[in-house]
Amino acid sequence: MPDKQKLVESITSMDADFAQWYTDVVIKSELAGYSGVRGCMIIRPYGTALWENIRNDLDGRFKATGHENIMMPLFIPESLLQKEKDHVEGFAPEVAWVTHGGSELLAERLCVRPTSETVFCDHYAQIIHSWRDLPKLYNQWCSVVRWEKTTRPFLRTTEFYWQEGHTMHETAQEAWDETERMLGVYADFAEQSLAIPVIKGRKTDREKFAGAEATYTIEAMMHDGKALQSGTSHYFGDGFARAFDIQFTGRDNTLQYPHQTSWGLSTRIIGAIIMTHGDDSGLVMPPRVAPVQVMIVPVAMHKEGVLEKAEELRERLSKACRVKLDVSDYSPGWKFAEYEMKGVPLRLEIGPKDIEKNQCVLVRRDSREKVFVPLDQLETTVPELLEAVQQGLFDKALARRESMTYTVTDWAQMCRTAAEKPGLVKAMWCGGEACEQKLKDEAGVTSRCMPFEQEKVGEACVCCGGAAEKMVIWGKAY
Amino acid sequence: MPDKQKLVESITSMDADFAQWYTDVVIKSELAGYSGVRGCMIIRPYGTALWENIRNDLDGRFKATGHENIMMPLFIPESLLQKEKDHVEGFAPEVAWVTHGGSELLAERLCVRPTSETVFCDHYAQIIHSWRDLPKLYNQWCSVVRWEKTTRPFLRTTEFYWQEGHTMHETAQEAWDETERMLGVYADFAEQSLAIPVIKGRKTDREKFAGAEATYTIEAMMHDGKALQSGTSHYFGDGFARAFDIQFTGRDNTLQYPHQTSWGLSTRIIGAIIMTHGDDSGLVMPPRVAPVQVMIVPVAMHKEGVLEKAEELRERLSKACRVKLDVSDYSPGWKFAEYEMKGVPLRLEIGPKDIEKNQCVLVRRDSREKVFVPLDQLETTVPELLEAVQQGLFDKALARRESMTYTVTDWAQMCRTAAEKPGLVKAMWCGGEACEQKLKDEAGVTSRCMPFEQEKVGEACVCCGGAAEKMVIWGKAY
Repeated sequence: MPDKQKLVESITSMDADFAQWYTDVVIKSELAGYSGVRGCMIIRPYGTALWENIRNDLDGRFKATGHENIMMPLFIPESLLQKEKDHVEGFAPEVAWVTHGGSELLAERLCVRPTSETVFCDHYAQIIHSWRDLPKLYNQWCSVVRWEKTTRPFLRTTEFYWQEGHTMHETAQEAWDETERMLGVYADFAEQSLAIPVIKGRKTDREKFAGAEATYTIEAMMHDGKALQSGTSHYFGDGFARAFDIQFTGRDNTLQYPHQTSWGLSTRIIGAIIMTHGDDSGLVMPPRVAPVQVMIVPVAMHKEGVLEKAEELRERLSKACRVKLDVSDYSPGWKFAEYEMKGVPLRLEIGPKDIEKNQCVLVRRDSREKVFVPLDQLETTVPELLEAVQQGLFDKALARRESMTYTVTDWAQMCRTAAEKPGLVKAMWCGGEACEQKLKDEAGVTSRCMPFEQEKVGEACVCCGGAAEKMVIWGKAY
Repeated sequence: MPDKQKLVESITSMDADFAQWYTDVVIKSELAGYSGVRGCMIIRPYGTALWENIRNDLDGRFKATGHENIMMPLFIPESLLQKEKDHVEGFAPEVAWVTHGGSELLAERLCVRPTSETVFCDHYAQIIHSWRDLPKLYNQWCSVVRWEKTTRPFLRTTEFYWQEGHTMHETAQEAWDETERMLGVYADFAEQSLAIPVIKGRKTDREKFAGAEATYTIEAMMHDGKALQSGTSHYFGDGFARAFDIQFTGRDNTLQYPHQTSWGLSTRIIGAIIMTHGDDSGLVMPPRVAPVQVMIVPVAMHKEGVLEKAEELRERLSKACRVKLDVSDYSPGWKFAEYEMKGVPLRLEIGPKDIEKNQCVLVRRDSREKVFVPLDQLETTVPELLEAVQQGLFDKALARRESMTYTVTDWAQMCRTAAEKPGLVKAMWCGGEACEQKLKDEAGVTSRCMPFEQEKVGEACVCCGGAAEKMVIWGKAY
């Protein structure tokens, strides 16, 4: 047996240091590695396979709602980035600038795209002429670059992968509908495919996207009680259309500006998967996107017939799920720990005694529950168990969020709860910027989301006591 | 009916001006458009869907041969690019340099990757320690940037999309095998999926990749007789491993350098599809990668039952192929021309008379052959016809290449053939650089490929008359 050490021994426990636990899990499970470029990560094969499953699932949902993919240039000329005032103010401080091509100094600097509203608008101005050309429902999968001061794998990196949808519509109503529809697509995807319960809501004006009229968000609660913004959808009105001179001839033969949306979900969502489902043994992958759903570990594989039977089971299961068989010469115990750390939802053990009894052992990663399964029932039992793990993860995450969500009605309660209880806090807000600032500075709640599903948890603003406009879910932001 | 003009009228004919024909087809079929950044194109939804089909097909072939995908940083620090001498000489003159992050001047310039050997090697140095860690069979799908002086959509652009495989092996033999295996994957893909016949061969030492010991290539002949390099596979030996200090403990417990390959195929292949199969009416898409395989055009669609029947057929065919139905209010004639230009392999016409006879009309894009098909045979006839188009395209391209390939044995013949006959020329070569240069300068043959399948077409070098080493296929390069 090789001298490779049992890796799981070196994962910090969540309670001891949550941030270190996170980093340990990312690195040791081989989701990602560090590169020689500050703030840029290498997404290793296991992380890439996870991202591909996420991408394929989401891409199917985009196509089912009528969207088409497109591939836009990586570079944006400085003059183009500057066309929309709020947008350039938001992004210029954090972009990477290309100044030279080969040895030649460029006449105009190019930035590496931090987001692509401007290049989409430039293209839309060329291709939208008539109401017949609308809607345009485009999406692109790419990486973008934002010069970040402090970075953490998946959560905040200089280069990150995402999809960015950019759409143009004949009417404001259609664009509002699209903004909401795509937030719904994100929420369904998070809950159904990633088993992450999310709150759909609107961000405050201070927190909306640079250049947007409104930003919608899905927010999830992580294991440590902090909130993670997991996908956003923006309504732009016709602000960019005016800045980029995009006009079309309407049904009434007048020139009009189209109405715009954009929406994005990034590799950050991998951080959400880790921090929602993970535990002290490492990752726990939601089965629907898990790169490997079932890992077969043969026991006493030097014994006659074990490897053959294991390979036969792999072959059979490969028609029903993503399955792998590990025939390396590491010990079964090492393999159990390794694939627990990697969060493989089901482990299948098969050894000489199991073969005698025509059965195998299936072990769930989430509950560690162990069942003996007759081999002729494998094709029905495995998908059922995968579904059970998927549902179990969602239920557990939802129960945790509910048990860590508090309601407060006055300032003292707000400050005490925010300071003492990890989790989310529901409280009324007057809508004023001064209160928003004070809540951030003095109560330390850096995340706020105005849920679509409003409840009246009081009459007065938790901060100033004035008339309350909205119930807000406050928290500490990733 | 809208006033949109019949677009096909404005495609230049191939014979009048092949380069203009190419540009017209790319732009008018909406495969790509120009962006505001010099040399960067927008790959529009139709082109993106084609690239996605190419990617999914190739990606399946890579995974079937044991490769895993990975996502590496976009940026390469200048010091890393400089580690391998030949490599930096080849690429430094054509890279884009990032000098600023936000308003901060970077301590070290970063280039936007022109290719990723250096970042892969940097990572390999971290993760390869023992023979047990080998082979590493990695691939990434991404865009790369090379600062080109003159550009043409798909054929030569500043930013282009590709996949780059990078592998590390225990022995030189394994790496040579991989270099050849992946060239075989490219050749099978080009011939089976794109219906493009290719010649597998080796490039001369002058033309090999910067830093490689050997470069293999697949070469295709375009409609105008010029050669297009369509995919390359490189053997590196241990040159990069030494430069990057990648060592592993071998089975014999000694420290050794691993042996490396890389291989790439890019959006250039879309140029090859256009120029191999296209005609004066526009694109002709090979069915296996066509974004739309069958376009249904209803005739007299205001008549009762036509739209319903067309939708019923679309629904039925969607289980067997990629099918679309155009219910826009353009005339059937406009639609026929539009989808011919876009190269849709099969058109299905359905009108009141067809419905009466319980049949429809299927028209092949390649031969324009028209058949009446009973509706109850649609699910068998359509896939058969798609296969027939696929095979027909390959046969036609192969016959054209054969009829435009010449064999010459002396210098006068070489010069005359190269000057007068578009196509490829087989001739013997002594292997000397002086003759290679003279063939380029004086006979004007800018492309050369030493095919794996050698034939002895003479005894002496076509240029100097000395002892011939190799039969070379000469041509004019894209």
